[in-house]
Amino acid sequence: MKHIAREISARNSFTIACHINPDADTLGSAIALAMALESMGKRALVYSRDGVPANYRFLPGYERVTSELPSDAPGTLILLDCNAPNRAALENAEFAYSMVIDHHNTESDFGDIRHIEPTASSTGLLVHRLIAELGARLTTEMATNLYTAMALDTGTFRYSNTDASTLRAASELVEAGADPGYVSNRLYNSWSEGRFGLFKAYISSVEDHGRLRLGRITQQMLAQAGTEMNDTEHFVNYPLLVDSVTVSVLMKEQTAGTWRCSLRSKGAINVAAAAEALGGGGHKNAAGCTALGTFDEVRARLIDLLKNA
Amino acid sequence: MKHIAREISARNSFTIACHINPDADTLGSAIALAMALESMGKRALVYSRDGVPANYRFLPGYERVTSELPSDAPGTLILLDCNAPNRAALENAEFAYSMVIDHHNTESDFGDIRHIEPTASSTGLLVHRLIAELGARLTTEMATNLYTAMALDTGTFRYSNTDASTLRAASELVEAGADPGYVSNRLYNSWSEGRFGLFKAYISSVEDHGRLRLGRITQQMLAQAGTEMNDTEHFVNYPLLVDSVTVSVLMKEQTAGTWRCSLRSKGAINVAAAAEALGGGGHKNAAGCTALGTFDEVRARLIDLLKNA
Repeated sequence: MKHIAREISARNSFTIACHINPDADTLGSAIALAMALESMGKRALVYSRDGVPANYRFLPGYERVTSELPSDAPGTLILLDCNAPNRAALENAEFAYSMVIDHHNTESDFGDIRHIEPTASSTGLLVHRLIAELGARLTTEMATNLYTAMALDTGTFRYSNTDASTLRAASELVEAGADPGYVSNRLYNSWSEGRFGLFKAYISSVEDHGRLRLGRITQQMLAQAGTEMNDTEHFVNYPLLVDSVTVSVLMKEQTAGTWRCSLRSKGAINVAAAAEALGGGGHKNAAGCTALGTFDEVRARLIDLLKNA
Repeated sequence: MKHIAREISARNSFTIACHINPDADTLGSAIALAMALESMGKRALVYSRDGVPANYRFLPGYERVTSELPSDAPGTLILLDCNAPNRAALENAEFAYSMVIDHHNTESDFGDIRHIEPTASSTGLLVHRLIAELGARLTTEMATNLYTAMALDTGTFRYSNTDASTLRAASELVEAGADPGYVSNRLYNSWSEGRFGLFKAYISSVEDHGRLRLGRITQQMLAQAGTEMNDTEHFVNYPLLVDSVTVSVLMKEQTAGTWRCSLRSKGAINVAAAAEALGGGGHKNAAGCTALGTFDEVRARLIDLLKNA
């Protein structure tokens, strides 16, 4: 990280870019870094093509994030939490100098200077280290952004990527003013009442097919709960809480006879093939497809496809 | 903690007692302390009247916990995670010397020597400090017990009691061998099928009383799901996922007309007073009590007590 800190110290004006479909790791890291650079008398623009999703509009300073890259954007790019320009919708932009800070596997050799550390639990952890390296004082606002970044990418320290250095950094961020209870409440406990009603309906819809569980969200359920399909995020993971359940399917009725199906699995079980057989795709543990037919027809097809998964 | 360490160093044989209805904080703290004392050549018995619930039978060394206090139990008592003998079912036992280590508000002046620190996030945190004070080497097994203790009492660092010292201690425990992903999977993703059935029934029982939500588990629901009351752990937290919900109550039917009530709240809302008014107790955000009456009677009393919380 020293080489990145050196190049930053030598420059004055930065475009800090977040990846598309931004999460709290890319956003919190970018905002905190911008604040640190400004505290050093530098200029920093934070660019996120998709802006800041509503659930992250508690990050201190989120208002500074712009979804339009100005034509006079600073010529030194810092790409955060991704390592290829198209991941930040920057494939057509030109920068005089580019830096990359990321914890994902390398997708491209983009960047004049890079720090890519796939074993790091979050980009927030790397930016925390960078800010220390730069000698900037960590404010409460920076600490809250970085703590949220780390918390999101580790499931607040529940995922297997959580290591001692992450917890130590989190401890330093709390000392600097980050509030763990507040951040967790904003990340996890901010459901609308409608969403909880929908969750009730979803949970009671979950059918037991042995190690496979299958639930549904119909347009009628949405109307009754007074909410929308976005509010089903993460629902499909709940049946996987059960030790013996290895596959969870959520069938979402888009329109009558059209079902958007989310497939999730645990460990070695691969659900991508079943999704592909219905014209969809995805990864081993998370895939999706759209299927036509009645609920009964689509369910039968999915159960058949997944029985050998 | 120095005075406790001094008294421990001067003695050789200990009965370490957990509170009734034991959780991972009292159990993990007790097992880790017993291991540390043995590593110093001392003798330690771990007593938990209610044994070790199935969901905590991953704690290394859990087999050593006894639910029968032998008549020749060591005469130096260390009471953990509670501070009155009846909380550990020891009201009729006699000890030559008693120590108390707890992070709950004081219920009695029991104990020849005490360390009670209500601002500490867990008893595990205090025992971690004690073990360091004693100069015992932290093994992976001790670290896993203490990490689990801390993780449980802070909701893996999500609750507002999470502070910098807790995260720093967690980091040291991970360095000593505790595995955050493993512990979280065991704490959160190891539901039985019966538990998921019970969760379905609980979620649909949750009533909307504005910012207060109240759900129930009856003996009939347990029988239908083929499971037991232990399996309700954490259920009461789910309604708090909703932004506007600040208090969640779970009424558990112990026997006909006897309800064990769990009260949870978010942020500044204090539920301890309501629990105390019914002869129970606890912390600001997590308290409990036992109340007698029909479901309707107890519910009305709780709603009334909590309306000004």
